[in-house]
Amino acid sequence: MPDFDRMVLVLKASGRLEPFDGGKFLRSLSRGGISKPVALQVLKEVEAHLHDGISTREIYQMASQLLSSVDLRGSLRYSLKDAIMSLGPSGFPFEDFVASVLSNLGYSVSVGNIVNGRCVKHEVDVIAIKRESAKMVECKYHNYKGVYTGLKEAMYTYARLLDITEGYSERHIGAKIDSAMLVTNTKFSEDAVTFAECRGLELLGWGHPERNGLEKIVDRYMLYPITILRGLEPGEAGTLVSCGLVLVKDLARLKEVEVCEKAGISKGRAMYLRDQARALLA
Amino acid sequence: MPDFDRMVLVLKASGRLEPFDGGKFLRSLSRGGISKPVALQVLKEVEAHLHDGISTREIYQMASQLLSSVDLRGSLRYSLKDAIMSLGPSGFPFEDFVASVLSNLGYSVSVGNIVNGRCVKHEVDVIAIKRESAKMVECKYHNYKGVYTGLKEAMYTYARLLDITEGYSERHIGAKIDSAMLVTNTKFSEDAVTFAECRGLELLGWGHPERNGLEKIVDRYMLYPITILRGLEPGEAGTLVSCGLVLVKDLARLKEVEVCEKAGISKGRAMYLRDQARALLA
Repeated sequence: MPDFDRMVLVLKASGRLEPFDGGKFLRSLSRGGISKPVALQVLKEVEAHLHDGISTREIYQMASQLLSSVDLRGSLRYSLKDAIMSLGPSGFPFEDFVASVLSNLGYSVSVGNIVNGRCVKHEVDVIAIKRESAKMVECKYHNYKGVYTGLKEAMYTYARLLDITEGYSERHIGAKIDSAMLVTNTKFSEDAVTFAECRGLELLGWGHPERNGLEKIVDRYMLYPITILRGLEPGEAGTLVSCGLVLVKDLARLKEVEVCEKAGISKGRAMYLRDQARALLA
Repeated sequence: MPDFDRMVLVLKASGRLEPFDGGKFLRSLSRGGISKPVALQVLKEVEAHLHDGISTREIYQMASQLLSSVDLRGSLRYSLKDAIMSLGPSGFPFEDFVASVLSNLGYSVSVGNIVNGRCVKHEVDVIAIKRESAKMVECKYHNYKGVYTGLKEAMYTYARLLDITEGYSERHIGAKIDSAMLVTNTKFSEDAVTFAECRGLELLGWGHPERNGLEKIVDRYMLYPITILRGLEPGEAGTLVSCGLVLVKDLARLKEVEVCEKAGISKGRAMYLRDQARALLA
């Protein structure tokens, strides 16, 4: 039975207060690949600093700081959600990340296409081609945690697919767009999921599909965005992306001199970032 | 030729700077039904107070204040755009206003319906019935001037219509929904207009259709929302709407005792508001 006298109320991203749940906290660390002894040590430290009204974000930052001193790789992977959430503000467009993820899943991808529909021209965030079939990918990026991508987004993605399939000429990409996928960095609302299943739209988001959500795919194939790295300078993420370094993988593969040349950053910075990248993937 | 030395740059709602245009200003007054001598007098006063960087809003407020001392009705009608823009914040839902406008155009209306589609249940802002045919009306309210209602809104409205026409049972309203209308208090983007025309969606917004936009219909049939009235107390608009007083017309028609009873406001306030309503429609 929970000890109600010692229960601390935590402020969630959604604005709701919820009792702090130590078990859930341990599970989130274990998902980040943190070993049990380290996780228990972090939990003990965190519990000593809890107070009513503390936000999940503060708890997260505390844990992240404690972790980075004992387990750099674990602490980086633990910060995945924040890394994906901070894609936008750091000048790292979400669609570039989505394109990289799909490319690592075996699709040929292109970003920022204009495609003729029956009624209007459409800006298609990503086109992903595998074999003869092309998918239009709509990317919906939210700046806040705790929000949902909902029915309206699913509906306009479907209407765009219809307009494209009814009016699209396959000349310029050599494949016919015949399906659509809506990708978000948040959860989907129940309505959005029901509508998408009914209309054959693919959805990819946080925790969706249940065993194959964006965070699971990213973790399984180690598709960490470079924004997961510590100590990126303002504008640095944007610079790296602009020369094709979207994922930590891309960065880890390069020799330091290439990093410097490609992104126009100093040799010292390049080595620092590359070493972090390698530690994360080790 | 314009006198460039005396040109004053005005800050538009969109954030752009544009030279003050006296002719455009006079036309906006004339649309409000202000007589030419009064309009010229207001223009002269306004020009004496212009300075670089003055916002259209400040100019509007200055004109509105000058007008109300010489022509109450004209000044009220001139503030129509602000009145519609302030529907949301004053607790006066835009869909109630849209329903009232459509009702005055001969439709039977109902607000806030849940309708079964093929895939999901839909919240339909307004259902508008004329003869055997029912229209689903999607209301898109923006809190800011200078923004556009765009392609995404047109696309999800279309997808909702499809889902409803494919799955809808007409049992509970006695008419079949077979068309859709998207109503907004702003302008539409070019893409939205092209898509809507191509897919047979009706659009109603600021300046659209060109000779029959929302502001023109409101003015032609004197369908002013009660938020156009001066000196409404906080929450008063919401109280009036909750008992069915959405338009100035409704308020003007009532005897003062009914106003008091219906809206639970004092006899003095009721008379004050009703007299303003009658002056506006006179």
